[in-house]
Amino acid sequence: MSSEFALIRRYFTRPPRHTDLAVGDDAALIRPGPGMQLAISTDMLVAGTHFFADTDPEGLGWKTLAVNVSDIAAMGARPRWVVLAACLPAADEAWIAAFARGFFACCEAFEIDAIGGDTTRGPLNLCPTIFGEVPTGAAVTRSGARPGDDLWVSGAPGRAALGLAHLRGEVVLTPAWRDDCLAALHRPQPRVALGLALRGLATAMLDVSDGLLGDLNHILELSRVGAVVDEAALPLAALLEACGDPVRAVRACTSGGDDYELLFAAPADRRTDVADLSARLDLPLHRIGYFTDTAEALQLRGHDGRLHTVSANGYDHFGQGA
Amino acid sequence: MSSEFALIRRYFTRPPRHTDLAVGDDAALIRPGPGMQLAISTDMLVAGTHFFADTDPEGLGWKTLAVNVSDIAAMGARPRWVVLAACLPAADEAWIAAFARGFFACCEAFEIDAIGGDTTRGPLNLCPTIFGEVPTGAAVTRSGARPGDDLWVSGAPGRAALGLAHLRGEVVLTPAWRDDCLAALHRPQPRVALGLALRGLATAMLDVSDGLLGDLNHILELSRVGAVVDEAALPLAALLEACGDPVRAVRACTSGGDDYELLFAAPADRRTDVADLSARLDLPLHRIGYFTDTAEALQLRGHDGRLHTVSANGYDHFGQGA
Repeated sequence: MSSEFALIRRYFTRPPRHTDLAVGDDAALIRPGPGMQLAISTDMLVAGTHFFADTDPEGLGWKTLAVNVSDIAAMGARPRWVVLAACLPAADEAWIAAFARGFFACCEAFEIDAIGGDTTRGPLNLCPTIFGEVPTGAAVTRSGARPGDDLWVSGAPGRAALGLAHLRGEVVLTPAWRDDCLAALHRPQPRVALGLALRGLATAMLDVSDGLLGDLNHILELSRVGAVVDEAALPLAALLEACGDPVRAVRACTSGGDDYELLFAAPADRRTDVADLSARLDLPLHRIGYFTDTAEALQLRGHDGRLHTVSANGYDHFGQGA
Repeated sequence: MSSEFALIRRYFTRPPRHTDLAVGDDAALIRPGPGMQLAISTDMLVAGTHFFADTDPEGLGWKTLAVNVSDIAAMGARPRWVVLAACLPAADEAWIAAFARGFFACCEAFEIDAIGGDTTRGPLNLCPTIFGEVPTGAAVTRSGARPGDDLWVSGAPGRAALGLAHLRGEVVLTPAWRDDCLAALHRPQPRVALGLALRGLATAMLDVSDGLLGDLNHILELSRVGAVVDEAALPLAALLEACGDPVRAVRACTSGGDDYELLFAAPADRRTDVADLSARLDLPLHRIGYFTDTAEALQLRGHDGRLHTVSANGYDHFGQGA
């Protein structure tokens, strides 16, 4: 094991920038700024469940951190620190070096200090815990959506699902879109700048990790509201171009996970602000529906204008029926 | 998976006491007190590596948290919050209920809020990340030991190693000691009160998780000092009574891990303070050696009074040769 410790130390010790005591002691020491709350999240990535065991380790390093950064972004917080616990089947230096490259590329991209961790031997399992800062009271939770608020989503969710379908041989993507969809799958871009800009504007927010309609249910549940999603407003153009299959495109957009786009509620009288933000960040923001006072009822308005109820687990059925 | 989510929610959602936002959103929100640093540590427990897959889940729940609490104690910090990521092979309600009992028993014992987590399906792996508070500048690190400081250890380290040897059929323990040693192995008692009391008294500290001499090397390395350990001063009485084998007793005490006793340095002119503390906490504290100015040199003074050098990995050799 000592060679493994040495490898981990060599590849995972970088000078921290805003940390009192980092890797090497019983615990790391940090201080959030005055008036700040800490936002804390953990997301475990398991070989065979979340990724193929032979996944490119550099991409995996990026994604392991990026999916956690996304949770912090979804609170409107700024990512600051991370600890990484890793269970590795072997001390494979090339693998560790590539993983570290991807992991620290994501640290650099978002100015995150890696402040500690733990390594052990066993089935491949990566478990980062991430810390963000947000001014006390400014975090955007899942529980603040109000009837009448608009429902927005960033980017073009569903590209990661098409990338995965491509890897599984279930779909043929055009070459240009194949690269785009695989990048969405392997190198998701957490929407940190958007999350920060939505403080004071969004009333509720989360990141889409399991699928748009399924994740939307979490907002409905915690905000005790309902929602209507307008099928005609879904950002399907890119997905349609990529796979040429309208049914698959709708299913990828509404049920596909792993894109880490932000889904948020905002007051209807703030539409201009959201549009300005979209322009400023050069990031498409799509108004895809609105919230209602029918607690936890999720409805889809089809192209025919009729409302279809989507049951709690109904986004799968919806996908099949579309 | 939804039944698993429901199970986790049922057994792992408890009202927090000092947390702004706990389980259920993208991230938890906490605020350390004014003038406080946060001490953060993560320790992953993997089936087959750290425990037998058929280990009693209630004990495992306790230990999963306790070994992390111990890292916070070893900084002289007060444990406050924990997030738990868990990879489980199946949604076994009886197992989850028992694990949660043990985990929350440890939360209660140390007034810790469980504020979030993640559950996934796969090989059994438990990954808590724990947060403690300590007044800024008051943490006891591994790097402050000075030549001339005394070397102290709490309790009777080695009992957990004897318990493990008993389970493996390598040793026969007397019935009374068998229960004691198995309790040390399965229900370690992190020394939180001791760690807090040693602020301003200990100059360096860590918890013994891998073995006394091996872990002592971490203090020598970070403090750039040497140490002499006096074999005659080691707390061997209980171990000898338990197993009746002097060689095994010495090896368990110096190389056995998993007891989570605290190993610390303190100035020689503070011996009375340490003795008073021992009496106040009703916890034996043993002065087992002293620090020297020979950087990273670890020596053992045998019963014959002669000094033997212990190499970096030498505690194994020592154990065999004693």
